Amino acid sequence: METPQIPAPLDVPAAIAARRSTKDFNSQGIDPELLQRILDLTTEAPSSWNLQPWRIVVVDDDATKEKLHQACFQQRQLLEAAVTLVFAVDVEAWQQDMAPIIDQAQTVGAWPPSYCESARQAIPGGQNALSKMGRLREYAIKDAMIAATHCVLAATSFGLQSTYMNGWQEEAVKQVIGAAGRDEIAIAVVIVLGYSDQVVSHPGRVPQRNTVFQGRLPEAGS
Amino acid sequence: METPQIPAPLDVPAAIAARRSTKDFNSQGIDPELLQRILDLTTEAPSSWNLQPWRIVVVDDDATKEKLHQACFQQRQLLEAAVTLVFAVDVEAWQQDMAPIIDQAQTVGAWPPSYCESARQAIPGGQNALSKMGRLREYAIKDAMIAATHCVLAATSFGLQSTYMNGWQEEAVKQVIGAAGRDEIAIAVVIVLGYSDQVVSHPGRVPQRNTVFQGRLPEAGS
Repeated sequence: METPQIPAPLDVPAAIAARRSTKDFNSQGIDPELLQRILDLTTEAPSSWNLQPWRIVVVDDDATKEKLHQACFQQRQLLEAAVTLVFAVDVEAWQQDMAPIIDQAQTVGAWPPSYCESARQAIPGGQNALSKMGRLREYAIKDAMIAATHCVLAATSFGLQSTYMNGWQEEAVKQVIGAAGRDEIAIAVVIVLGYSDQVVSHPGRVPQRNTVFQGRLPEAGS
Repeated sequence: METPQIPAPLDVPAAIAARRSTKDFNSQGIDPELLQRILDLTTEAPSSWNLQPWRIVVVDDDATKEKLHQACFQQRQLLEAAVTLVFAVDVEAWQQDMAPIIDQAQTVGAWPPSYCESARQAIPGGQNALSKMGRLREYAIKDAMIAATHCVLAATSFGLQSTYMNGWQEEAVKQVIGAAGRDEIAIAVVIVLGYSDQVVSHPGRVPQRNTVFQGRLPEAGS
């Protein structure tokens, strides 16, 4: 079989315009080299303190797809899409990950020594403060959403279709990916990727007067 | 004054490679036409049920910048960057926004009538379930993070520098944007945008064996 060429990527505005949440996929698979390129662009995402809390599970075998399908209210795109990526997060991993990440940033000269020194104090201080506020999960998920958006826009730039999915039962998804009962693992989002023959219409957006404001928000109820 | 031309945008992989969290900005302003283009690409982001819960506050006046600077632990990029965007969310707005969004999607033919009918039931059902689980805020913030990532990658594609900022006191930021005491408003992220003469080094990423997995997560502690 001839290896399909990876197409030249779309620019950012064109990728944003081309992206539509897609439910109907055809049977074309994703070239492994292209999938790896998309994963590389995904993990290039920035994160709080560069802690990279995302744990991305690649699902492309039929048995796991079927289990995910059940965990996601039997939405059919889980069975049809070539690949599903489960964006999980490990909200406690920063405790192990912090030191090597700081060391690396110092070694390559990206963070000055003084900044590295302050980070060694500030990261535990900040994370413990988030923990007390019950926000560790939220902050890890925020980072994972940046990575997921990198993933979707990169995939779109190479001609793939996708959907961000929130329709799943968290404990069931965790069980499928081998994280049943692990409180430190949370699910941020599930993304299906593949090729589609469907032309999806744009559902529109509300006027920006409802969502973009100069200097301050309008009063409640205005 | 001659209007600077908006440059041709970078492709998605190039924009991801070019993006570096930047703290030093020069005094060059952002062309209003370019800023509007970036905001248009930002609000093109998808969201759960297309509910678009983001409420984006554009801050470019010195008085408000100074107040934000105070609310963000006096980080200097708040004063130096040409524009700061506060990505807030309204976690209750879906109650008002749902009907016009469904009507619009049906009018343009993006959602079939049967899907619109089910959405009228499923959105309140889903949102009330999230509310019971204490997750309404998390889900609105997830949508806002997709929009914020659109914003940063679009801005990067046009030659701007940026930083996603989590270092702020939520109630103080809410006060600055006129949302003091409003429980339905949450802050997702603050983004500074501008031009920079700084060359920021890449701090590196952990190996993908730590963050990307085939089929399932490794055991805890492995």
